[in-house]
Amino acid sequence: MKFEDMLDRTASWLKGSGPNSDIVISSRIRLARNLEKFPFPHWAKKPDSEQVLALAAAAFEKTPELKDGIFLRLDDFDNVDKQFLVERHLMSNEHAIRSSQKALFINPDENVAIMVNEEDHLRIQVMESGFDLDTTWRIMDSIDNRLSEVLTYAFKKEWGYLTACPTNTGTGMRGSIMLHLPALVMTRQINRVLEAIAKLSFTTRGLYGEGTQASGNFFQISNQVSLGSKEEEILGNIKGVIKQIIEQEEKARESLVAEHREMLEDRIWRSYGTLKNAHIISSNETVELLSMLRLGADLGIVVDVERSLINELFILTQPSHLQKFENKKLSANERDVKRAQIIRERIGG
Amino acid sequence: MKFEDMLDRTASWLKGSGPNSDIVISSRIRLARNLEKFPFPHWAKKPDSEQVLALAAAAFEKTPELKDGIFLRLDDFDNVDKQFLVERHLMSNEHAIRSSQKALFINPDENVAIMVNEEDHLRIQVMESGFDLDTTWRIMDSIDNRLSEVLTYAFKKEWGYLTACPTNTGTGMRGSIMLHLPALVMTRQINRVLEAIAKLSFTTRGLYGEGTQASGNFFQISNQVSLGSKEEEILGNIKGVIKQIIEQEEKARESLVAEHREMLEDRIWRSYGTLKNAHIISSNETVELLSMLRLGADLGIVVDVERSLINELFILTQPSHLQKFENKKLSANERDVKRAQIIRERIGG
Repeated sequence: MKFEDMLDRTASWLKGSGPNSDIVISSRIRLARNLEKFPFPHWAKKPDSEQVLALAAAAFEKTPELKDGIFLRLDDFDNVDKQFLVERHLMSNEHAIRSSQKALFINPDENVAIMVNEEDHLRIQVMESGFDLDTTWRIMDSIDNRLSEVLTYAFKKEWGYLTACPTNTGTGMRGSIMLHLPALVMTRQINRVLEAIAKLSFTTRGLYGEGTQASGNFFQISNQVSLGSKEEEILGNIKGVIKQIIEQEEKARESLVAEHREMLEDRIWRSYGTLKNAHIISSNETVELLSMLRLGADLGIVVDVERSLINELFILTQPSHLQKFENKKLSANERDVKRAQIIRERIGG
Repeated sequence: MKFEDMLDRTASWLKGSGPNSDIVISSRIRLARNLEKFPFPHWAKKPDSEQVLALAAAAFEKTPELKDGIFLRLDDFDNVDKQFLVERHLMSNEHAIRSSQKALFINPDENVAIMVNEEDHLRIQVMESGFDLDTTWRIMDSIDNRLSEVLTYAFKKEWGYLTACPTNTGTGMRGSIMLHLPALVMTRQINRVLEAIAKLSFTTRGLYGEGTQASGNFFQISNQVSLGSKEEEILGNIKGVIKQIIEQEEKARESLVAEHREMLEDRIWRSYGTLKNAHIISSNETVELLSMLRLGADLGIVVDVERSLINELFILTQPSHLQKFENKKLSANERDVKRAQIIRERIGG
């Protein structure tokens, strides 16, 4: 696997398959892990951080689940390349901005990504397509077990895994589900739903992770509490809440189709027509239109556009991806033109 | 020729050919004529009006230029059928609303239409595609001469032809040119142009004639004065003014293409995409989008849609045409759905 080839590859979590993949884009689990006897990254001096990088790299090499992956030292990367990795949901923006003694490991399917020396020594992420926390957890658990054989984790029996920020202490685990809820938005039920899950200690974020607003009807829902529960319990809670949201979105879709079919088809087909024909398009408009197109594909209204292509376009149309395609710096206006071109080419004008 | 077949036929003035047909939709001349010894229609009693109808019908039959036309007694028509004729630019709204002892003659190409007992006994209209007042006048003059051999026109040497409204007295002639001026609108020069021609005693109307606002960048420009000039002089004046407007629109198009090509292509292709895909569309939006599509066709940006089809769609998408297609009364919402369907079918989704 080479970094240069990533632009032409599609991450496996975008393939639009798996359980409930008409509503659930992806299931993600991340674990925060730290090495005993090393200061947390924010307080660590350079030699300590370098040693953590070396230990991590060596451990990844010995882990069969991480075979054929790449270990990227971020100091070597320019901003476009780092943002490119952020846009692919492989690492945080924070990790891109301050990159000394930081690294990112990615496996070939891009379903596993490990940030080294972000807030914690290791932030391990596993992502799968659709609503599939079980598979996601199985992969994660196996990686975590294997790494713990090679690395000595900071762990206290009474607290669990130690982390830089106390909110992550305990399991160090966060589960996140990316949902597409256009019908709940259109029928104005979404606020009620989000308020209800906030009371259950879940947080909602936008399509592009922490600090981003929900846009284009995409909502990423995560557990807030990682302490005092077993991993399976936390995942069980998430599954229960998500199942209810899925049911409500399904009902809302049914009622839209039954009662407002023409309005719905009009919005979907207009979105399709605009995507296929625009020559200048902003990032916001793209997300809104792709959301409608995806709904059209999920309802069987638009049949000639694959769900996986729509998923992929959310990533390909972002600023650094556009600049990688063009292989040069682009102004905001130039990006709007390039974005429209990429969409036209892929959807097939 | 049968009235029932008209829905499937296209008027020859819509074919999008003729001089300057990238900017000029059509050239139209109408003459007001009255029969001596009969009161003007508004003051006429029923027997007089019936006699005018009979004389007119007999005169049309003897006129070779009007061969194979149809003479429609409007008393027999319902509102949808009458509005259908208004939408095809064959008669005035006034003629449709008060229809007793009124008739409309149409020739098979729909380039000649004669209202009987509208404001004047005869209102003869000739319409041709493109900027071609010469052909239009040649046809008109020959019909007028032929009719004057059979009918005795009300005429005074010192005033010319007598008409119900004194503003039409003299030649009884009005020349009207339907222009498509999207570039003058987009570059915000249109008001200056319209103010200048108003000072030259020309009037500007919208796409659908008297009393309608300009929409979708269409402007119908006519002479106001019909007295004290020969027909050829009046037509010469119109030609001079229109030529200047055409030149200014051409320049504005060139500068748009040179300086704002991407914006222009974006607007044109988005319009195309929406027309091809919408499932609900209002009449206003249709005119705006068709205007952009027509500009795209005229600039060679959109090549797979014929100009004649675009012209035709302005007519086919109007309320009575939609109801004739569906063969029943339609609500405004139902018309918006039917309109979108007709457009999709014709443009080829």
